Amino acid sequence: AMELWQVPLRFSRLPMFPFFDLAHYVASVMALKEQRGAVEVSVRSPIACWFSAMLYCFGGSVLSSLMLAEPPVAFLAKGTNILLASSVWYFVFYCPQDLFYRCFAFLPLRLLVAGMKEVTRTWKITAGVAHADSHFKDAWLVMVAVGWARGAGGGLISNFEQLVRGVWKPETNELLKMSYPVKVTLIGAVLFTLQHGQYLPIARHNLVFLYTIFLVISKVTMMLTRSATSPFAPFEGALGHMFFGLQKIPSKVKSEAAASSNGSSVCDQSSEQHRDSVKKRQAKKTE
Amino acid sequence: AMELWQVPLRFSRLPMFPFFDLAHYVASVMALKEQRGAVEVSVRSPIACWFSAMLYCFGGSVLSSLMLAEPPVAFLAKGTNILLASSVWYFVFYCPQDLFYRCFAFLPLRLLVAGMKEVTRTWKITAGVAHADSHFKDAWLVMVAVGWARGAGGGLISNFEQLVRGVWKPETNELLKMSYPVKVTLIGAVLFTLQHGQYLPIARHNLVFLYTIFLVISKVTMMLTRSATSPFAPFEGALGHMFFGLQKIPSKVKSEAAASSNGSSVCDQSSEQHRDSVKKRQAKKTE
Amino acid sequence: AMELWQVPLRFSRLPMFPFFDLAHYVASVMALKEQRGAVEVSVRSPIACWFSAMLYCFGGSVLSSLMLAEPPVAFLAKGTNILLASSVWYFVFYCPQDLFYRCFAFLPLRLLVAGMKEVTRTWKITAGVAHADSHFKDAWLVMVAVGWARGAGGGLISNFEQLVRGVWKPETNELLKMSYPVKVTLIGAVLFTLQHGQYLPIARHNLVFLYTIFLVISKVTMMLTRSATSPFAPFEGALGHMFFGLQKIPSKVKSEAAASSNGSSVCDQSSEQHRDSVKKRQAKKTE
Repeated sequence: AMELWQVPLRFSRLPMFPFFDLAHYVASVMALKEQRGAVEVSVRSPIACWFSAMLYCFGGSVLSSLMLAEPPVAFLAKGTNILLASSVWYFVFYCPQDLFYRCFAFLPLRLLVAGMKEVTRTWKITAGVAHADSHFKDAWLVMVAVGWARGAGGGLISNFEQLVRGVWKPETNELLKMSYPVKVTLIGAVLFTLQHGQYLPIARHNLVFLYTIFLVISKVTMMLTRSATSPFAPFEGALGHMFFGLQKIPSKVKSEAAASSNGSSVCDQSSEQHRDSVKKRQAKKTE
Repeated sequence: AMELWQVPLRFSRLPMFPFFDLAHYVASVMALKEQRGAVEVSVRSPIACWFSAMLYCFGGSVLSSLMLAEPPVAFLAKGTNILLASSVWYFVFYCPQDLFYRCFAFLPLRLLVAGMKEVTRTWKITAGVAHADSHFKDAWLVMVAVGWARGAGGGLISNFEQLVRGVWKPETNELLKMSYPVKVTLIGAVLFTLQHGQYLPIARHNLVFLYTIFLVISKVTMMLTRSATSPFAPFEGALGHMFFGLQKIPSKVKSEAAASSNGSSVCDQSSEQHRDSVKKRQAKKTE
Repeated sequence: AMELWQVPLRFSRLPMFPFFDLAHYVASVMALKEQRGAVEVSVRSPIACWFSAMLYCFGGSVLSSLMLAEPPVAFLAKGTNILLASSVWYFVFYCPQDLFYRCFAFLPLRLLVAGMKEVTRTWKITAGVAHADSHFKDAWLVMVAVGWARGAGGGLISNFEQLVRGVWKPETNELLKMSYPVKVTLIGAVLFTLQHGQYLPIARHNLVFLYTIFLVISKVTMMLTRSATSPFAPFEGALGHMFFGLQKIPSKVKSEAAASSNGSSVCDQSSEQHRDSVKKRQAKKTE
């Protein structure tokens, strides 16, 4: 019989292929479809849409390859994964009567898929950290950067992913205004780098287990409460105040700002965003 | 005496250097000069203009190097080719009384140069496919991608080439709205990859011969008829309808759309483009 | 006793670490702080601001790594340099009452720091030229390009550095409108490449000495006279006239144009720039 203390170890040996990878592709491509203009792109140019979907699914791999001067097209060599991701892309965008998308938009399924996607995030961060360590021995800043890039690549390169779809928003990016997934991935990359350097008094599989649990629970909670307040907001405020002399922003404003930057939330925010952009345009005209 | 069946074999052994390469440089730099604003750039900053011309001539090499994590400046090490391309650039842009450009704008010469440029395309695609195969054994998607990038690099990176000249058009790119040369290069990359994997019942030199003939004839026909209707339009329509559920677009609209995206056509389209952009601006104001 | 003729040799063996590197970081981060909008970014997102500062300090390393297909994150592995640069960034942006910035904005200190920064430029150019030579034997164009990129990287990638801060100015770049530091670095890269190939009748350490003296004197003079007229303006005019048939531009206009493109001048130009941009916007509206 499996003992309770064995759970983290067994968990940390879970294979991602095929089910968790598949969930990652489904969640990513559905997030792409919810971007404003994505459906029009899928009609105008299936190739641009496919490439955009691949950047959503394999963006972390592309970005970390670029950072380590390895071929960024390497992901195209993993035939089975590409086939899976392409099938998901095809069904999400072109399924008759949108059956596939509607099916996975059903909340319980959506929660399951989102939770499984978060599990792949941990695996990617640890793979990125280990990969960087094999290139640059003990360069902990490189390990954090590559782990972060691998785990949150789709977000970090979103400006260039949007460019593929003919959208260009230079006024913002994920460094200027970090979304919650990018933020939590950065924290994970720091934690796993510290663990790798044995600065943390915790075994690797336990950290994997605890961090993943945290990822899944926070993701599911945020989807259920439709809130986008980062659980780190108080810490961030305190740190910002202590180190950078920033004024603490009232939490209400903060959560609104975060809400508008969260691309993969349950509800479709396009109408709200549209109103915002109309306002901005009017503001520009009157200035 | 040379037999007829030997023609394809001999043809496939033609050296590109120096005459075909030269034709490629002439056609590319002339296409650059016909871009709106390029002549002003050549006056404001010869260096930016030179760099832009090099991206037109060696864009495929740069892009495929980036994709395979090889030094993108490698093309600068090929001294003779750079010297040739730079001389062409110099004569096209700065020849007194524009003699060089006018001479090659003479239709028969222009057709010859354009035809020879298309021949280099085949050579680049096959080189790209073979190069990718030497990096990733039997990864046919990588082979298609690198062959495509090598053969149509100048087009695929056009957004960034324009940026060198201070032009930024994020609303379109060659994936969203493929021009005919980019499209036919993609088909070529697929064909040569299939041939490389021995899925096609045709010898390599025969495919090289037939594909090049097709390239040259279609290019010359399009230049003579001043039409930009892709010969693939009916197939594309059928495929789009079958796989992506797209409505068939009336062919007239399609050909107009294609015409406005064809950068290297015979006639100068700047006045037409200008009218378009004025219309767009007005449309934006009234919305 | 040290003889006079030994001065260049000893000078060329000066270690850059830590004092000259430190001066480079101080001058670079202060130049960043003087960019319009940089202070707001430091409040909104310390991470974007830090990354931007690192691109200012290590841009040459990043760009030359990309050009030679080496890991662009390699600079993150040099722990001590990153620590120094990050400390400088922290003190420049977040020091209480802006003491650090004010202190180094004091003209004599500012001149010292700027002069020392110019010394590091020579070292970077020679390192870049030697590095390129180790990759591509005797490819002098690659040597010039990499030496230039290493010495003036921060300027050459400024479009993308600005993107990190949410600023996008596609209408200009350092190739279209070269600033004086980028120009003088290009000349230096050409000189050191020629010296490397033994086409110049001068020993390496003498060239290092003379070029650095020229860099420092011209920089200090330009800061003291608040002029931004390039000392090369007459030569450029003559060359442009001879090779590219350009009309000689009256020197007054030229110096004004140069002044507005010099990012690291003593006086803050934001008010002037703001007026310019307002004018442009009005011009756009009335067209």
